[in-house]
Amino acid sequence: MASTSADKKAERRSRFEAAWNVIRDELVEHLKGEGMPADAQEWFKKNLDWNVPGGKLNRGMSVVDTVEILKARSLTEEEYFKAAILGWCVELLQAYFLVADDMMDQSITRRGQPCWYRVESVGNIAINDSFMLEAAIYWLLKKHFRTEPCYVDLLELFHETTYQTEMGQLIDLITAPEDSVDLSKFSLEKHRLIVVYKTAFYSFYLPVALAMYLAGVPPSYVPAAAPHAAAVSPYKIALDILLPLGEYFQVQDDFLDYSQPPELLGKIGTDIIDNKCSWCINTALAKVTPEQRAVLDASYGRKDAEKEQQVKKIFKEVGVEKAYEEYEEAVVGKIRKMIEAVPEGTKEGELKRQVFTSFLEKIYKRSK
Amino acid sequence: MASTSADKKAERRSRFEAAWNVIRDELVEHLKGEGMPADAQEWFKKNLDWNVPGGKLNRGMSVVDTVEILKARSLTEEEYFKAAILGWCVELLQAYFLVADDMMDQSITRRGQPCWYRVESVGNIAINDSFMLEAAIYWLLKKHFRTEPCYVDLLELFHETTYQTEMGQLIDLITAPEDSVDLSKFSLEKHRLIVVYKTAFYSFYLPVALAMYLAGVPPSYVPAAAPHAAAVSPYKIALDILLPLGEYFQVQDDFLDYSQPPELLGKIGTDIIDNKCSWCINTALAKVTPEQRAVLDASYGRKDAEKEQQVKKIFKEVGVEKAYEEYEEAVVGKIRKMIEAVPEGTKEGELKRQVFTSFLEKIYKRSK
Repeated sequence: MASTSADKKAERRSRFEAAWNVIRDELVEHLKGEGMPADAQEWFKKNLDWNVPGGKLNRGMSVVDTVEILKARSLTEEEYFKAAILGWCVELLQAYFLVADDMMDQSITRRGQPCWYRVESVGNIAINDSFMLEAAIYWLLKKHFRTEPCYVDLLELFHETTYQTEMGQLIDLITAPEDSVDLSKFSLEKHRLIVVYKTAFYSFYLPVALAMYLAGVPPSYVPAAAPHAAAVSPYKIALDILLPLGEYFQVQDDFLDYSQPPELLGKIGTDIIDNKCSWCINTALAKVTPEQRAVLDASYGRKDAEKEQQVKKIFKEVGVEKAYEEYEEAVVGKIRKMIEAVPEGTKEGELKRQVFTSFLEKIYKRSK
Repeated sequence: MASTSADKKAERRSRFEAAWNVIRDELVEHLKGEGMPADAQEWFKKNLDWNVPGGKLNRGMSVVDTVEILKARSLTEEEYFKAAILGWCVELLQAYFLVADDMMDQSITRRGQPCWYRVESVGNIAINDSFMLEAAIYWLLKKHFRTEPCYVDLLELFHETTYQTEMGQLIDLITAPEDSVDLSKFSLEKHRLIVVYKTAFYSFYLPVALAMYLAGVPPSYVPAAAPHAAAVSPYKIALDILLPLGEYFQVQDDFLDYSQPPELLGKIGTDIIDNKCSWCINTALAKVTPEQRAVLDASYGRKDAEKEQQVKKIFKEVGVEKAYEEYEEAVVGKIRKMIEAVPEGTKEGELKRQVFTSFLEKIYKRSK
C-alpha cells in the first residue's frame, strides 16, 4: 500500500517524538546521578513531559528538516539524533518561555490542558521549573556537542536568541499590559519590533541557524558554483530572510485571531479582549477617523463581548482585511525575491533555497 | 592620617561598586543599540539597579580577592575590571534567583526595600525581568571574555552552577512548602543536599573557580615546589573544601536565625514560622522523644508566635545550641586540615591556601 502524505507527516512526527523519550530519560537520569531524591526526579520528569512535547513541534522538527536539506540526503541514525537534540533544545527554550508567559498572562489552558502553574501543588514553583527547562538545554549541548567545532556557536546562539526573546517580551508586557489600555503606546513600528524580538528570532532564525552550524556551514564562503563571485555571509542571508518571514507569520497569526471563525482557527481568538498589541489594531489605528479612534479607546482590551464587536466593526469599516491581503502579497513577493537571490549551494556546507521555500510554503495562506 | 580597617573595607566596596556603574551602563546601552524603546531601557536599568547591587556583595568581591591572592600582587586596572565583571556576573546570577525566590516565597521585603515583584506596576513581569538578569551574564561574558582561553570554561561553569542551584531550590520547595508541614520529609541528609545544591555551589565554589580560570589555573599540574610529586587537580581540591565550607556557612545561618536576638542578627528570624528545612529542626528531629516530636508536628511552620515558642523550647530541651557548637568545632577542624593539605603554590597558576583561609576567617564565629 502506498503511504499517503498524512502517513509521512505522522511518521515524521513520531520519529521526532521518539527522540524526546531518549532525551527526557537522559535528563531525569542526570538528576538521579546528582543524588536528587525520587520525588524531585519525578517532579522534573512531569515538568518536562507536561511542558515540552505536545505542541505543533514545527520549530523543533524544522531543525531536522533543514539539516536534511543542507546535506541533500537522508540522515544516518546518529545524524538524525543529533539534529533532533537541537530541535528539542528549541522546544525546551519555547517551554521555558511559555511556562513563564502563562503565569505573566494568568492564562488558564495551553495546548488543551491546564497551564503548568495551575496544576495541583505546582503554583509558583513553576518559576523554578521554567528555569530548569532552560538549564536542561545547556546540559544537553555539553553532553552531546562538547567536542564539536560548532559547540561555542551553538551556546552563543542560544544565549543571544534567549536574550532577544526576553527583550521582545519586555516591550510587549510594558506596551500592552492586560489591565491598562493605552492605545497611544501602540504603532505598527512597535508591533514589528515586538514581533521580531519576541517571536521571529527564536521561531525562525534559531532553528535554521542551528541546523546550519550542525551541517558545517561556515561564517562566509565563495560559492563553489561561482568561484569568482564575492564571498557570501550565509548567516546574514538567513537572518535577512527569516526575520521578515517570522514577522509575516505573526501578522498572519494576529489576522487569523481576528478573522477566522473558531471552528477553523481551533480556538477562540481573544486578542481584542486581552488588549494585545496585534497587527490588526495597529493597522486600524493608522486608518481611523477621530470618531472611530474614540470608539477604539473606549472598547479595546475590555472584558466585554459587546465592546469586542464594536472594535471588530471598526476593523471592518477601515478595511483591515484588505490591508492584510495587500500586506501578505507584498511581503511574500519580497521574501520570494530574496530567496531567489540566494546563491544556490552545490556542495555540503552551502546554503540552499529550499531551506527557505519549505518554510514559506508551510506558512503562505495557512488557515490556522 | 593612617587609614583604618573600616576605611579599607569601604574603599574595597566602593571600587567594586564603581565597576557596577560601568557594567550596568554597558547593558542598558546594548538594549538601546538593539532599538529597544526608551521606556524598555529605563525599565531594564531600574531592574538592574534594584536587584543586583545593594546586598553584602561578598560573593562578587570574593572573585576579585581570589584573583589577587592567586596572582600574589595588586591587579592592574584592566585586570581588576575583568575580575569585577566576573564578580558582578555572580551577583547577577544571585539576583536572577532572588527575584524569583521572593515571588515563590511571597516575600515582602529584601535588603530593606520591597521585593521587585511588589514594586508598583511590576508584578508578574518580574519573571521576565529575572530572565533578563540571567541573560545579561552571557552577554557580558561574550563581550569581555570571548577571546580568552577560559571562555568556554566560564560559560560551562555558569551553566552548571545555575542548574545545580535550581535543583537545590526544587528539593527545598517540594520538601518544605510554606503552607503544608510534613516533618517526615525532613532529615539532616536532606538538609545537607539542599544546602550544598541551593547555596554552596553558587556562593562558594563558583566565585573561586571563576577566579581560578581567570588567573589561568590549569585543570591539573605538578606543583613547582615539588616537581616529583603527583599532579594535583586544583578545581577538585577547591570543590572538596568549598562545599563543606558553604554547608557550614548555611548551617550557621540557620543557627543564627534561631538563636541570635534580632538586634544582633539585623532582622527577625522566621525559619520556624516559615516551615524552613533548617539545620535546627533537623537536628532536633534526630534527638526528640515521641512526645516532643508530637509538639514539633503540631507547632512547626505555623503562623503563630505561641507555637514558635513551643518549638524553641524543644530546641532548647534537646540541646540544639550544644549540637551546633560541636558541629562547628568539628567541621572547622576538618576544613582546616583540608586547607593545610593543599600544596602551597609558589608560582602563578597554582592554588594558594589563603584562597580558602580568607573565606574561613570571614565566616568562623560570625554573629550575623
